[in-house]
Amino acid sequence: MRVELLCTGDELVTGLITDTNSTYLEARLFDLGVKVERVVLVGDVRPDITHALLSAAARADVVIVSGGLGPTADDFTLECAAAAAGVPLVEDARVLGWLRERYAARGMSTELNPGQLRMARIPQGAEPVRNPAGSAPLVALTLGRCRLFFLPGVPREYKALLDAEVLPRIRAWLEAEPGRVYRAFRLLRTVGLGESVVDQFVKPLVPLHPRVVFGFRTHAPENHLKLMAEAPSQAEAEAALAAVEADCRRVLGTHVFGADAEEYAPVLLGMLERAGATLAAAESCTGGLISQQLTAVPGASTVFIGGAVVYAEKMKAAWVGVPPAVLERHSAVSRETAIAMAEGVRAACGTTYGLSVTGYAGPGGGTPEDPVGTVYCALSGAGMPTRCERRTFSGDRDRVRLFAASHTLEMLRQHLLAAPAMP
Amino acid sequence: MRVELLCTGDELVTGLITDTNSTYLEARLFDLGVKVERVVLVGDVRPDITHALLSAAARADVVIVSGGLGPTADDFTLECAAAAAGVPLVEDARVLGWLRERYAARGMSTELNPGQLRMARIPQGAEPVRNPAGSAPLVALTLGRCRLFFLPGVPREYKALLDAEVLPRIRAWLEAEPGRVYRAFRLLRTVGLGESVVDQFVKPLVPLHPRVVFGFRTHAPENHLKLMAEAPSQAEAEAALAAVEADCRRVLGTHVFGADAEEYAPVLLGMLERAGATLAAAESCTGGLISQQLTAVPGASTVFIGGAVVYAEKMKAAWVGVPPAVLERHSAVSRETAIAMAEGVRAACGTTYGLSVTGYAGPGGGTPEDPVGTVYCALSGAGMPTRCERRTFSGDRDRVRLFAASHTLEMLRQHLLAAPAMP
Repeated sequence: MRVELLCTGDELVTGLITDTNSTYLEARLFDLGVKVERVVLVGDVRPDITHALLSAAARADVVIVSGGLGPTADDFTLECAAAAAGVPLVEDARVLGWLRERYAARGMSTELNPGQLRMARIPQGAEPVRNPAGSAPLVALTLGRCRLFFLPGVPREYKALLDAEVLPRIRAWLEAEPGRVYRAFRLLRTVGLGESVVDQFVKPLVPLHPRVVFGFRTHAPENHLKLMAEAPSQAEAEAALAAVEADCRRVLGTHVFGADAEEYAPVLLGMLERAGATLAAAESCTGGLISQQLTAVPGASTVFIGGAVVYAEKMKAAWVGVPPAVLERHSAVSRETAIAMAEGVRAACGTTYGLSVTGYAGPGGGTPEDPVGTVYCALSGAGMPTRCERRTFSGDRDRVRLFAASHTLEMLRQHLLAAPAMP
Repeated sequence: MRVELLCTGDELVTGLITDTNSTYLEARLFDLGVKVERVVLVGDVRPDITHALLSAAARADVVIVSGGLGPTADDFTLECAAAAAGVPLVEDARVLGWLRERYAARGMSTELNPGQLRMARIPQGAEPVRNPAGSAPLVALTLGRCRLFFLPGVPREYKALLDAEVLPRIRAWLEAEPGRVYRAFRLLRTVGLGESVVDQFVKPLVPLHPRVVFGFRTHAPENHLKLMAEAPSQAEAEAALAAVEADCRRVLGTHVFGADAEEYAPVLLGMLERAGATLAAAESCTGGLISQQLTAVPGASTVFIGGAVVYAEKMKAAWVGVPPAVLERHSAVSRETAIAMAEGVRAACGTTYGLSVTGYAGPGGGTPEDPVGTVYCALSGAGMPTRCERRTFSGDRDRVRLFAASHTLEMLRQHLLAAPAMP
C-alpha cells in the first residue's frame, strides 16, 4: 500500500510551526508495516494544493491531507479537492446538523454564520465523518483508485480522527490484503549507556533474530531500542518478540529501566513507594533539575519530601549541614562535599535516602583536576555507607546538568534493584 | 524567487525524526521576504529522490536539498542528482584534500576507506564548498535555470552551511533583483498576557502601519509579537519598524520583557545584578522549576543564592521557617503560608528578595475554595511589605507549574521595574 501525506498551511512553510502531525502519523503507519512514501507541505495557495492533490492521488493508494478545513478565508482545501475531482462543493445536511448540535451544546447560536457554513460544504459524493474533538468533520473521498482523507490540522483533532477513524480503516484494508504480515513491538528504554555501546551490545543479536527489525533512538540522557517482530501470524510475531526481548534484556541488564510508555521518574518513584522509602535531594550544579523532574510526576509527594538547591556555599552549610571545614579544605566541588550534602539532606528531611550532586556545569569554572563537566554524585541511605561517584560529561551547560541529574538518580535506582527489601 | 525544500531520509518518513531543519530554514528565508513554496520529504529510495529533484527543479528557481551525503550505503542523494542532471559522478580533488586534512587533524588515518571516498564523489560540473562542522561538503549544482544546494541533514552542519554559504548567496541574488524590497524585523517578547489579549491590544495598530506585517506566536507561558517592516529602502524600513515598535511597546507596556533573542531568565538575572540584589526561592507545587530555570543561565550564582523545594509540610517549617501554627490554621496552600515561605527563604539565605509559590498543580488535590490550578505566589523584599497574589491556571499539571513559576518570577520583575533604585 502506497501512502502519501499532504499538509497545507502558510504556517508550515514560513517557519512558524514544525509539522509534528506527520511524525505522529508516520510512526503509527510504520507500526502497521507501512512506510510513508512522501510528505508534501504547501502553503495556502489554491493551484499548489490542487496540483499536489492530483499528483499524490496519481501515485498513491491512500493520501492523508491535513489543514485548511476551518471557517476562515484561507481554509479552502476542500475547494481544491472538489476542483481536483471535477465535482461541485455542496452543503451537507449531516455536517450542518453536527455543527448545530455542537454549538447548541456550548450555548452558542445555531444560526450558522458564513464561516461556519463553509465547514458544511464538502465535495459532492464525499463522505463526512463527525469530529469528536472539534467542528470541521473528517472527509473521505475517492479519486480514481486513490482514497483520500481530509483532516483538520489542529493536532488534538488530527490525532483523535486518525486514531478513531483513519487508522482503523487502513488496518482493515491491510488485513484484507493477501500475504498479510503480522507485527509485534517493544520499546526498551535504557539509561547510563552511550548509543554506540547499546549498538555494540545488541549487534551480535541481530543475525539471531531474522524476523526482528532493530531500531535505535537517542533521547538524551536515555537511549531507546525499538524491536519489531514480523511473522505470518500474530502468535509467531509475539513469540519472536518475546525471544528477542529476553536476549536484549540479558545483554543490556539493569540499564533497561522501562518498556514501551514507562518513563524514568515514575519508574523510580514507584520503586521507592513499593519499598516504603522516602527521598530528599541536595543539588548544586543541577540547580533543582532533580527535584523538578521528580515533582513533575503526579503523586510524587508520597515519596519526595524536599530538595535543597544549595547554590551558595553558605546554604550548603545552613540547609544540609555541610561543615564549613569540609568546604574550606576540599572546596564545594569535591567528593567530601557531595557526601556531606547527601547525608545532610537525608538528616534534614528525615528520609530513607538522600541524593546530592555538585560540579562544574560550565561554561566558566573548573580546575585542572576537575575541569568543566566534572560532577560528584552521592547517595546516602540508612544502614549503608554513603557512596560517591565522580563523572565528567562533555557538552554544554544544559547537557552536563541533564546527565549529572540522570547519573545521580541512577545511583539510587541501581541501589534499589540490588537491595529491594531494604527498609 | 520560487524556493522549494527537499529532505531525504527514511528516518523522516517513518516517524523517527521530526524535520526541524526546514522550520529553521523557512523562518530565515521568510526574514529575507521569501515564502517557501513547497517542502517535500522522501525516504531513501533512488527513483523517488531523482523524481523529486527533477520536478522541484522544473518548478523552482532555488531548491535546497538535505540528507544522504554521508559515507554509508543509504547515502546516495548526489548519485540521484547526477542522474537527474545526466552527468557522471566524479571524484573531486578539492573534497579529497579537505577530508584528508580533517582526518589528519583528528589523528585519524588519511588513507580514506570506501565510505569516506564516497563523500568525495560529486556530480561533474558541481561546485563543492568546504563544511566547517563536518565531513560531507556542501554541493552547488545548476539544473536548467534552477540552482540546487545539497546539504548534510545533521542539524548542526545544516545550519552552519546555510548561515555561512547558502543564505548569503540567496540574499545577494535577491538584492540584484529589480524592484527589491528592504526589510527590518523586531520580535517583542511578552509575558502575563493571553494571546487573544495581545491580539486585541495590537489590532488597532495594524491599519496605522501599512508597511508592517504583524505576526503572533505563542510560546507558553510567553507570547511573542513579530514585526516585519517592508519599504523601498533600508532606511525607510528601519523607520517604519521603529514607529511600530514604539506603538506596540506603548500598548503592551511592561508586559514586554525583551526583544529579539533576549530570554526571560537572563533578563531577570541581569536586572537583579544591575540592582546589586540577590534572590532566593521557596517552591512547593513548582517543585524546583523556578530554581532550575534561573540556574540554567551561566553565571546565575552571582545573584541566585539558594532554593528550597519544600514539598513536605515539615520542610516548610525546617528550611524556611513557616510557623507550624500557620500551616495548621491556614493549610499549606494559602496566602499566609506563601507569605511565610517568601519571608522565610529570604531570611534563611540572607538575600535582597525572596520568592515563593504554593498551590495545587493537580491532577489530584484542591479544595472547593481553592480548586486544582490555584496557586499563591509571594514576593518578600527588604523594606517593603510582602506581596501575595492568588491565581488559578487551567490545564494539566505541567501547564499549571509552568504558569505558576512564570507568574512568581514576574512579580519580581514588575517590582524591579517600578523600584529600580532599591538597594
